[in-house]
Amino acid sequence: MSAVQTITLAGEMAMKRGSIFTPTLAYETWGELNAQRDNCILVFTGLSPSAHMCSSTLDPSTGWWEDMVGPAKPIDTSTYFVICINSLGSCFGSTGPASIDPQTQTHYRLRFPVLTVEDIACSAGHVLDHLGIDTVHTVVGASMGGMTALAFCLLHCDRARQLLSISSAARSLPFSIALRSLQREIIRKDPAWDNGNYDFSNHGPVTGMRLARKLGMITYRSGAEWAERFGRERATGFQHSDDSFGNDFEFEVESYLENHANRFIGSFDANCYLYLSRAMDLFDAADHGGSLDVSFSKLKLRTVLVIGVETDFLFPIQQQEELALALNKHVEQVEFKRLPSIQGHDSFLVDMDRFRPTVAAFF
Amino acid sequence: MSAVQTITLAGEMAMKRGSIFTPTLAYETWGELNAQRDNCILVFTGLSPSAHMCSSTLDPSTGWWEDMVGPAKPIDTSTYFVICINSLGSCFGSTGPASIDPQTQTHYRLRFPVLTVEDIACSAGHVLDHLGIDTVHTVVGASMGGMTALAFCLLHCDRARQLLSISSAARSLPFSIALRSLQREIIRKDPAWDNGNYDFSNHGPVTGMRLARKLGMITYRSGAEWAERFGRERATGFQHSDDSFGNDFEFEVESYLENHANRFIGSFDANCYLYLSRAMDLFDAADHGGSLDVSFSKLKLRTVLVIGVETDFLFPIQQQEELALALNKHVEQVEFKRLPSIQGHDSFLVDMDRFRPTVAAFF
Repeated sequence: MSAVQTITLAGEMAMKRGSIFTPTLAYETWGELNAQRDNCILVFTGLSPSAHMCSSTLDPSTGWWEDMVGPAKPIDTSTYFVICINSLGSCFGSTGPASIDPQTQTHYRLRFPVLTVEDIACSAGHVLDHLGIDTVHTVVGASMGGMTALAFCLLHCDRARQLLSISSAARSLPFSIALRSLQREIIRKDPAWDNGNYDFSNHGPVTGMRLARKLGMITYRSGAEWAERFGRERATGFQHSDDSFGNDFEFEVESYLENHANRFIGSFDANCYLYLSRAMDLFDAADHGGSLDVSFSKLKLRTVLVIGVETDFLFPIQQQEELALALNKHVEQVEFKRLPSIQGHDSFLVDMDRFRPTVAAFF
Repeated sequence: MSAVQTITLAGEMAMKRGSIFTPTLAYETWGELNAQRDNCILVFTGLSPSAHMCSSTLDPSTGWWEDMVGPAKPIDTSTYFVICINSLGSCFGSTGPASIDPQTQTHYRLRFPVLTVEDIACSAGHVLDHLGIDTVHTVVGASMGGMTALAFCLLHCDRARQLLSISSAARSLPFSIALRSLQREIIRKDPAWDNGNYDFSNHGPVTGMRLARKLGMITYRSGAEWAERFGRERATGFQHSDDSFGNDFEFEVESYLENHANRFIGSFDANCYLYLSRAMDLFDAADHGGSLDVSFSKLKLRTVLVIGVETDFLFPIQQQEELALALNKHVEQVEFKRLPSIQGHDSFLVDMDRFRPTVAAFF
């Protein structure tokens, strides 16, 4: 059973570069809103997760941040009322390119307006309105979710007291833009993408999505971790053959990528992936004032924790430091925590021994 | 006019995992072999260059290492007799998958045996035999060329006195294997690849090669360089449009990759690329003895210089250090030079201000 709740806005929602009609926003909540309505933690996700961050009575399936969120966990649902929002533009209940446009009764596909991180942040304001919450205790986000959390604080200056930014950045730089741009092009160049008009029942550009996912996985981890984990181990069952370019992968790392990429197929809509990926490229917090300094001068946050990982090369540690330093000029209490995890960008999902105590200490 | 010379071996050449018939090996030379025949520098290339390393009277076109090799340059052709070999398996004169198999009178394509770095190194021995050179003064190689140079020293222990290894490694680790494996899969998944049977006149899997080349370029440079060079600059002529997934690239870095990848098309055979790329994955110097230590114990080198670059994440600095340390146990004089270039793996081709004096000091 799903614990997903939805609200559908009346009329048009204006976006940064277009508008959509009566969008639906999907979210899950855990814990209880207190009488003062001031114990809300709002969590934005990375590119691909749904709002199902952790299990609950309604939906006991394991969530994507199960070890971090729950009763007596670092994000403690017995103390806080925790909301996780499925990003606008995604495909797990919120309106996105795979949704039906009520005005045409056909799927949006590429007619969905250009999506920005600001649009995702802005839409979250409607969820808070619906739940009767003026101000959240803390906005939390990792990766793209960190950008969205920051955008939320910039757009809704009065609605957040604390920010927890994990492995994110104040803006996308050309190295990560190039990697995401290539992932998108790999999908678009799959003939099955068909300019966005693929048949949903066939999962669309399966090959393009598999290859893009592999590239994603390579960039989410680190060379150091894989050297330790796989070394030059051969794939189980691999046998030398005269055909070096058949379907067999010789090394364990190749077979690992293959298995993981195959699991991704059918679980995410290709057009939604394109829109969310592009939204990350477009994000630059400096757009809100002309420079990071001017943008951040409007913030009314009291406390910020920026967590970064040394082996993350998609959101490198220098960018975490840049974000913390820029925030430090305008927010009273800014802490920058540099973690030596070896799992790269994905560390917040897997290196729980380091992330759990760091997040727990913040709350 | 081409300065490329070729030799064609009589009969069969045994390879590590197969054999080919009467292979041709292409090479260029500069300078004069002295009377003692002991002033030869042998250069192996990276994956994609030809033997045309620098200009000469016969071929005045600019070579791929023009700033490094020539009269009064760090690799000084007025003192040394310099040979650069087009790798076996490549497509610039040496026999490879795009060549005609004399036994069938058809192109080898995927019937070419699995290629290893050792086969490339071994074939160079035939070129030296042909030129009447017993022992070379120095073997030089960068990237894949460094692996080949090391393999040459392991296979022909008595034929090299010095080794200059640049941005290379004693073995491929899973991170670079994953990146190359993905590049190959991108090419193989292009329908125009046609299981290796593409029409040569149409350049074969153009889309796959373009995408693989972009991934290559991303891994050859560094985030730091691109942040400095491109920042969030928009592409010349870019205009916001409602179509975010058309052919236009919004950021300068995207347009840069597009232009460079397009230039690669038609200049390299796809099957040759697959074979050479796989050869790098397969390389492990430890195969020559069971461990690096045992393998290196047979070396008879007198002097080694290992140069690595701090921002190289394809052949990371730790691997350069590992190579130098392992060599240090068995070679009298081993120097490890760590360069702070910001151009990543490609630094040896572009950061001439750092590489020229380092190489010059070695000779």
